[in-house]
Amino acid sequence: MKFKKILVIGIDKAQLDAWSWDDIDSLTEKRICLPADSSEIDSELKDADCLLVYFNKADKKMIDKASTLKYIGALATGVGKIDISYATKKGIIVTNVPGYSTESVAEFVLAILLENLREISRAKGESKKGNRSELGFSSREIKGKKFGIIGLGSIGLRTAQLAQAFGAHVFYWSRRRKKDVEKKGIVFSQLKDLLKTSDILSFHLSLNPETKNIMDKENIEQIKTGSIVINTAPMELFNGASLEKRIRGGDITFIFDHTDIGDISEENLKRFQKYKNCITYPAIGYISNEARIAKQKIFILNMKKFLHGTPINRVVA
Amino acid sequence: MKFKKILVIGIDKAQLDAWSWDDIDSLTEKRICLPADSSEIDSELKDADCLLVYFNKADKKMIDKASTLKYIGALATGVGKIDISYATKKGIIVTNVPGYSTESVAEFVLAILLENLREISRAKGESKKGNRSELGFSSREIKGKKFGIIGLGSIGLRTAQLAQAFGAHVFYWSRRRKKDVEKKGIVFSQLKDLLKTSDILSFHLSLNPETKNIMDKENIEQIKTGSIVINTAPMELFNGASLEKRIRGGDITFIFDHTDIGDISEENLKRFQKYKNCITYPAIGYISNEARIAKQKIFILNMKKFLHGTPINRVVA
Repeated sequence: MKFKKILVIGIDKAQLDAWSWDDIDSLTEKRICLPADSSEIDSELKDADCLLVYFNKADKKMIDKASTLKYIGALATGVGKIDISYATKKGIIVTNVPGYSTESVAEFVLAILLENLREISRAKGESKKGNRSELGFSSREIKGKKFGIIGLGSIGLRTAQLAQAFGAHVFYWSRRRKKDVEKKGIVFSQLKDLLKTSDILSFHLSLNPETKNIMDKENIEQIKTGSIVINTAPMELFNGASLEKRIRGGDITFIFDHTDIGDISEENLKRFQKYKNCITYPAIGYISNEARIAKQKIFILNMKKFLHGTPINRVVA
Repeated sequence: MKFKKILVIGIDKAQLDAWSWDDIDSLTEKRICLPADSSEIDSELKDADCLLVYFNKADKKMIDKASTLKYIGALATGVGKIDISYATKKGIIVTNVPGYSTESVAEFVLAILLENLREISRAKGESKKGNRSELGFSSREIKGKKFGIIGLGSIGLRTAQLAQAFGAHVFYWSRRRKKDVEKKGIVFSQLKDLLKTSDILSFHLSLNPETKNIMDKENIEQIKTGSIVINTAPMELFNGASLEKRIRGGDITFIFDHTDIGDISEENLKRFQKYKNCITYPAIGYISNEARIAKQKIFILNMKKFLHGTPINRVVA
């Protein structure tokens, strides 16, 4: 069994290696690739039976255009922009790629945290300029700090374990209590308490209607003065205006990597980057070489399994 | 009891905060401070009963000039440039500051390793320039890599534990086997095997006649192609010419932070910095804010304990 027509939206060579495109082409009679802002999307949707997306949307309006659609494959763990319940109602199977980036993101959180605590980029640059002395460098240890994890899925948990290995006191808030994790000394805390008391905060919530804007004005104001806040989760968790106001105040450090188009507009990103206590990265946290290979393999396996009538990694509302 | 004259060589405000200088002054009738290359050292040594040094030397020649010397206090853990046996023979007590930097150095090793694996500095810079995509970034995980620790003192052990928490396979070589550590899965390996097989190598040997130049031409040639070598220990462990030759070959990445004067000459540092696979930092690994405070407290306590006739942290040959 093959697909008749695969429509790929918002995925390009940045996300999939040549071997993956070859694999995809072996599963379909025809493949059309469009950027996420293409005006041809509506017309190309009409006869597609397979839609492949990245973090970009597949909403009710798009699904309505695609009357022969059977399968939506997301090349991502988060599917916050896919209307899962409407797709399910229409008999369309939606799959995602879970788990591949756990280690990659967790290690990245430590990488960008340590960069900030030890002034690594500046030190590297200063050394090249001939500065050999520690004079003028300020640096702090992770050990002994209060480390708050918001969202204890697989990435949050792995980050918590690493923080604990460094000797931080690790607390978490999650929608569901995890008693087995608590036995290992990762302590549950109410969200507000966590925000008020953590020296370091790391966000690991997936985006959904419950978590969107969870960091509203009131919660953002609770964040402890002097703390470092790391967000490797979608920026939509935060109320942008309130966050900017808090960053402008200068008493917290905010670090995030969800800077790709779709997560934050060009204009908003530039506004955040004005503040020296706001540090941004390209969207590289989730995609180590190891994760990139695992991700592509799962993405393609999802399609093959669907074609064989035994779908895996289905997302249901 | 007070000292009559403290001679401080090679220590300045980069190393000691104002409160420490006040404390030191309360322990002596007179204090003279000189840079490590001062021509006045010989004459000022004559009537000093206390000599305070940093990483700089206190050799036989200097000790012979200082006929009233009773105490040498090193503001460092490593005392490779102090002639301990000659000082001991002359009845001079030598103290060092052990342990204060364990966490600081171990966290720094992970910081500069993760910076390299994830291209953190470049990513931070690219984001500022408006690059939002992961395209063109290569990144690797620590998990699953073979991680070799050379020298399993307190810093080496702490680094090994962190590497293990990240999911690396950790092996060590040290002059003495540590059976209790081996029970925790940190595996002993012969030095040559470690060099040949490790994806990541981290050096934690102290400098002494046995370890000086331990990384000679033959050992340097054994290092695995493609590996990352981190040296937060003295650069004197390596044969400079052989190391440069290997770095010039381009098939290893060498990262070190012992770039302060005394460890490596201006000329040699510049030669190493020419290679893009050689990454240097100012000497900031050992001195987090937490370590800096602990270090000064121990340094001054050493002097007070000596004056009270109950010396601590003595170094013996």
